[in-house]
Amino acid sequence: MAGARLVGRLGRHSSSLLPPLPRHAHHRLYSPSSSSEGQYSKMGDSGERNGHCTPTRLLFCGPYWPASTNYTKEYLQDYPFIQVDEVGLEQVPDVIHNYHICVVKNRSIDSDIIAKATQMKIIMQYGVGLEGVDVNAATEHKIKVARIPGSTTGNAVSCAEMAIYLTLGILRKQKEMDTAVNRKDLGIPVGDTLFGKTVLILGFGAIGVEVAKRLRPFGVKILATKRNWSSDTLPSDVDELVDKKGGPEDMYEFAGEANIVITCMTLTNETVGIVDHKFISSMKKGSYLVNIARGRLLDYKAVFDHLESGHLAGLGIDVAWMEPFDPEDPVLKFPNVIITPHVAGVTEYSYRTMAKSVGDTALQLHSGQPFTEVEFVN
Amino acid sequence: MAGARLVGRLGRHSSSLLPPLPRHAHHRLYSPSSSSEGQYSKMGDSGERNGHCTPTRLLFCGPYWPASTNYTKEYLQDYPFIQVDEVGLEQVPDVIHNYHICVVKNRSIDSDIIAKATQMKIIMQYGVGLEGVDVNAATEHKIKVARIPGSTTGNAVSCAEMAIYLTLGILRKQKEMDTAVNRKDLGIPVGDTLFGKTVLILGFGAIGVEVAKRLRPFGVKILATKRNWSSDTLPSDVDELVDKKGGPEDMYEFAGEANIVITCMTLTNETVGIVDHKFISSMKKGSYLVNIARGRLLDYKAVFDHLESGHLAGLGIDVAWMEPFDPEDPVLKFPNVIITPHVAGVTEYSYRTMAKSVGDTALQLHSGQPFTEVEFVN
Repeated sequence: MAGARLVGRLGRHSSSLLPPLPRHAHHRLYSPSSSSEGQYSKMGDSGERNGHCTPTRLLFCGPYWPASTNYTKEYLQDYPFIQVDEVGLEQVPDVIHNYHICVVKNRSIDSDIIAKATQMKIIMQYGVGLEGVDVNAATEHKIKVARIPGSTTGNAVSCAEMAIYLTLGILRKQKEMDTAVNRKDLGIPVGDTLFGKTVLILGFGAIGVEVAKRLRPFGVKILATKRNWSSDTLPSDVDELVDKKGGPEDMYEFAGEANIVITCMTLTNETVGIVDHKFISSMKKGSYLVNIARGRLLDYKAVFDHLESGHLAGLGIDVAWMEPFDPEDPVLKFPNVIITPHVAGVTEYSYRTMAKSVGDTALQLHSGQPFTEVEFVN
Repeated sequence: MAGARLVGRLGRHSSSLLPPLPRHAHHRLYSPSSSSEGQYSKMGDSGERNGHCTPTRLLFCGPYWPASTNYTKEYLQDYPFIQVDEVGLEQVPDVIHNYHICVVKNRSIDSDIIAKATQMKIIMQYGVGLEGVDVNAATEHKIKVARIPGSTTGNAVSCAEMAIYLTLGILRKQKEMDTAVNRKDLGIPVGDTLFGKTVLILGFGAIGVEVAKRLRPFGVKILATKRNWSSDTLPSDVDELVDKKGGPEDMYEFAGEANIVITCMTLTNETVGIVDHKFISSMKKGSYLVNIARGRLLDYKAVFDHLESGHLAGLGIDVAWMEPFDPEDPVLKFPNVIITPHVAGVTEYSYRTMAKSVGDTALQLHSGQPFTEVEFVN
């Protein structure tokens, strides 16, 4: 499912705020662009200045991650021919036929919804995770599906910082620290250091690489698993970042060496529930687990049981099995579990950059120019 | 006040658990050791095996940081001739005359208490901070005052990890994340990255160096101030760690460039309240402040006023003006303030290592051997 990233040949919009389209640019609107994505170029007339505009309509699915909608609206505020809306998750099936492009967020986009999306040209994510989209159904309906590569938008960097934060949070026993403050205790709990630990990074894509870079000077040993180590997206100094590289088949052996496991994988049919009883049992007693990728990479019962038995010394998650997650869920009652509200990638830096990516994609769709910001998976 | 670190010439206790003293070692007890610290060697007879033992008595002042006492007791469990006690802060003046060595923790040891410490040979800290000890009074009473250098025990490393944790915690808005989880919100708040920021480290001793090492791969610019950059304790790659070095006189100018200030200074008469109105006003609007050193480096009112005005975007502190700090203090009510219970240096790694340092120092005092673990400041 590896998608080729389409690099714009015009490129003028690739690294700065888009200026308002010059009047002569409207001539492009009725003719396919020179791009191979010409099929997406005939979206109608954006000539709002001459009074017969057909706007390009962009839908954000659901109310969560509100900054994605708000920042995109701000980015597009000088382009009234791009209409940006947000509707509740439940309303999506009823309105999707009105839209040309949509940002799925955590809405499942199944074949039924896709069948209703009669004007849809692009289904995209505000980020990288497309597990909720039935890509095959989209392909059948000639709808392109796209993600925003994390390595260039700050998403991977933001997620990596959150992985470090959660790791330190469980090592230092965040909840017990809060309790100590409230009880006027001092100098407890005794925490643990990253220093001297062995960290296993499951999935060594853009996020995993950024996690490893940041972990390196903490004085840790780094193990990592990845399907394809010959990937050309790896940094040239990968051998300095990783002490031991393995494939998916090595994850159990590596788990036995690690004190901390950080999951940075994409959620697919192969990876759903991959952190299961077998895997967690393979981890050392007293080890820590951090998940900043997708909640369902972890098997809930396996995690719960190993927290209950004390085999897992701590769990730090930015993502959960259902989202938003029930704050009363029993797994959150363990004193060594911390959770954040799926904000690993939600920073000013990445959200402003991704707003530009979504906005530019909508503008490029509108004007028939090549897509410079997204990676298509179909 | 720089103290020479005494490196043991025997050295046999310097890097591993001490074995029980061999019987012939007791011959040393009545004769000054060959060390220049011979004045501390005549502590009486530790020959507990022949029934007329005078134990060396070690006092931990106060109930806080309980692991310091407990881990030291564990370390010394095979040495019954070292008696380890802990008493409440208020009881210290009444019992201190019974002890030969004490660990001050957060107890103030003023000249009145020192005058009562008639058998005292060494006043030491479980760590580096000696601001509570009247060193001049100790010197007058021929009592040595010692700290445990942080660079070798894991204390500096532990504190540096906490500095990174607190920095990420305020950048990501820890309290707002907790609120979002509890409200079943998702994808808020929008946090900030370390990436792209300028960080000013005030005080570039052992902790500051470790902070800079860990910050480097986060993609930040690092400024640092230090009294003496020609210190031989600096790493050889200091120019790769720090983009801009300055003296104390540069701190206001540097503050104007920084998005984040991390205080890593010793508390002295010169540094108390150094982060004051003038300094914080020099910081950029919307910048962040982190303190993992000593609470009174910060001027309370200056910090409070700049949080109230919004000039400071966040405050992360492991140390406070009074400790334990009142959990109802108004400064903790700001949503962008987080506090931890003075545990920056409290990790398994550093506390086990420092227990060895305290234990070995007591054993060396008892047996008249040179001190290998501590740095004397008088």
